[in-house]
Amino acid sequence: MTDLSFWTQSPPAPSQARINSARQRQDSLTKPPGSLGQLESLAIALCGQLDTEKPAVDRVQITVFAADHGVCDEQISAFPQSVTGQMIANFAAGGAAISVLSAALGAELDVVNLGSIGPLAEMPGVINHRIAAGTANLAREPAMSEAQLVAALAAGDQAAQRAADRGAQLFIGGEMGIGNTTTAAALACALLGAAPTDLTGPGTGLSKQQVTHKTAVVERALARHGDNQDPFAVLASLGGFEIAGLAGAFLGCASRGIPVLVDGFIASVAALVACRQQPALRPWLHFAHRSCEPGHSRVLDALEANPLLDLSMRLGEGSGAAVAVPLLRLACALHNGMASFAEAGVSEGS
Amino acid sequence: MTDLSFWTQSPPAPSQARINSARQRQDSLTKPPGSLGQLESLAIALCGQLDTEKPAVDRVQITVFAADHGVCDEQISAFPQSVTGQMIANFAAGGAAISVLSAALGAELDVVNLGSIGPLAEMPGVINHRIAAGTANLAREPAMSEAQLVAALAAGDQAAQRAADRGAQLFIGGEMGIGNTTTAAALACALLGAAPTDLTGPGTGLSKQQVTHKTAVVERALARHGDNQDPFAVLASLGGFEIAGLAGAFLGCASRGIPVLVDGFIASVAALVACRQQPALRPWLHFAHRSCEPGHSRVLDALEANPLLDLSMRLGEGSGAAVAVPLLRLACALHNGMASFAEAGVSEGS
Repeated sequence: MTDLSFWTQSPPAPSQARINSARQRQDSLTKPPGSLGQLESLAIALCGQLDTEKPAVDRVQITVFAADHGVCDEQISAFPQSVTGQMIANFAAGGAAISVLSAALGAELDVVNLGSIGPLAEMPGVINHRIAAGTANLAREPAMSEAQLVAALAAGDQAAQRAADRGAQLFIGGEMGIGNTTTAAALACALLGAAPTDLTGPGTGLSKQQVTHKTAVVERALARHGDNQDPFAVLASLGGFEIAGLAGAFLGCASRGIPVLVDGFIASVAALVACRQQPALRPWLHFAHRSCEPGHSRVLDALEANPLLDLSMRLGEGSGAAVAVPLLRLACALHNGMASFAEAGVSEGS
Repeated sequence: MTDLSFWTQSPPAPSQARINSARQRQDSLTKPPGSLGQLESLAIALCGQLDTEKPAVDRVQITVFAADHGVCDEQISAFPQSVTGQMIANFAAGGAAISVLSAALGAELDVVNLGSIGPLAEMPGVINHRIAAGTANLAREPAMSEAQLVAALAAGDQAAQRAADRGAQLFIGGEMGIGNTTTAAALACALLGAAPTDLTGPGTGLSKQQVTHKTAVVERALARHGDNQDPFAVLASLGGFEIAGLAGAFLGCASRGIPVLVDGFIASVAALVACRQQPALRPWLHFAHRSCEPGHSRVLDALEANPLLDLSMRLGEGSGAAVAVPLLRLACALHNGMASFAEAGVSEGS
């Protein structure tokens, strides 16, 4: 039987003692207090999460969850569903953005196929965990069964276990799934009580008219779903396999003491679902960037998240989070390597 | 006689042919068009600046110009002037933020002492080019003579030549000088016709009352200076040696085909001065971050700059620019390493 303790049990808190001593160290370093801005708070948080005096994020695990979406029957994407499988092959071959970024960062990259519409050949770096040939069309019926949702959540927890086995100091969850901005908008609307017009956007590149159609599809899905806000019920009714995988992975990482760097709109919706299930997840999350997708800012606000980057990115795959990794690494280098006023013989300010 | 051609002659334009082909390549890569946001425009600009199909910024030159400011007589800083020299020693010893960042990035770090109040012992990595024991008090008299300004500008051009000799693919100019947010505010007000209340801020950590006093000092300086907007005259009257060094270095880099990554408020004011002298400098400049110092946004607007980062940093030294270097490197990696739709066999969008 599947162990769902990562879902049902609250993760531990980061070390407050480490946070306190890290804050003291930051204030002793040769700079005006606070002048490194978010790099200071990043380093302090990492000390608490990694339970260490000298944090490092040398070992980064990137896991991309991929799956197809039955709601593509409603013509809500600029790309055909076949692209999900084609991009899985591109991840494996090293040609996708996240492949290039992973290599440049020296990160581990896993791809988990949770439900491409068609079966795929075995590929190195791709874990075949295909639950179904995509979800059902959430505009007409529940996206998945309870058993399917449990399988997707558990696949996320298994990804967190692999990260722990490799000694990862940071986890990034990416996603690939044609149609998944529709799914994510529906999930966010259900959890936030927001209007579909506020959270539905152009995704990979819809026209204004196509966005209006997509919004109507989300409205139909919400009308069918009703007002149940239980995270498990919302995921089963309106979710995607890869979004459930992300939610499971985030909770699995926190339960194992691994901080998470959250990517864009889809990953942030997964974080929202997971934080609704276990609010103690929140202090394990860093937010990498503010996506162009208009719903993202609303989700970030709900999570009280102030992301590191705002580069007008909207690719997904974990790419925005990967781009932010060097900021965490440099924050650690500064925290660990700078001299204190006393060490350097520099006069402090008045 | 000093060669001032970098100051008097317009730099060349980046290669438009390389920019055009780089844009075509970006649109062929396996991602929705434009979905990498500013990373796409960065890579395209670097292709033009470095005149190459496959850009790289592996070799980064960071040069920190340091000098003292006579306006410190007016009590406008939270730190004593002795800190300028102490921080030069901290740069050399590896304990300052920019030292740690340079090492982490594998960048070359030079420190150029253009005018500490007291003479300093010889230190490895510090170039002694001390023009005077700080500038004169710009609230009461011109900050420097024309000969001193020429020496400071030329020191910047020499730094650009060292960068070229080392094959630098990117130049970052940092600054250290207690009092230099006052100097920079005065310069920006003179060039932009702005009110000192709009451009004077807390610097390293002044109270609201102290900022009011600092604003009055800037007002006195501007009243003395008058309305001359000639960049050379403005620098001589209201500048600092390190700000002139930065302006000279930026122009020297552009004239040698080296792109520049501009740091925060002080460096952006130096860029503004240099762009007023030679508008053709602008396409050689990338802007790294938006500083907390309130005048910075006004200066960025005047330069039509949309910086990469907004991390509430306000340290100077070139630190904000150094933190942005990995973004340029990852932009290059993506541009050079991603597969095209055709190569990967991925279907394009409708």
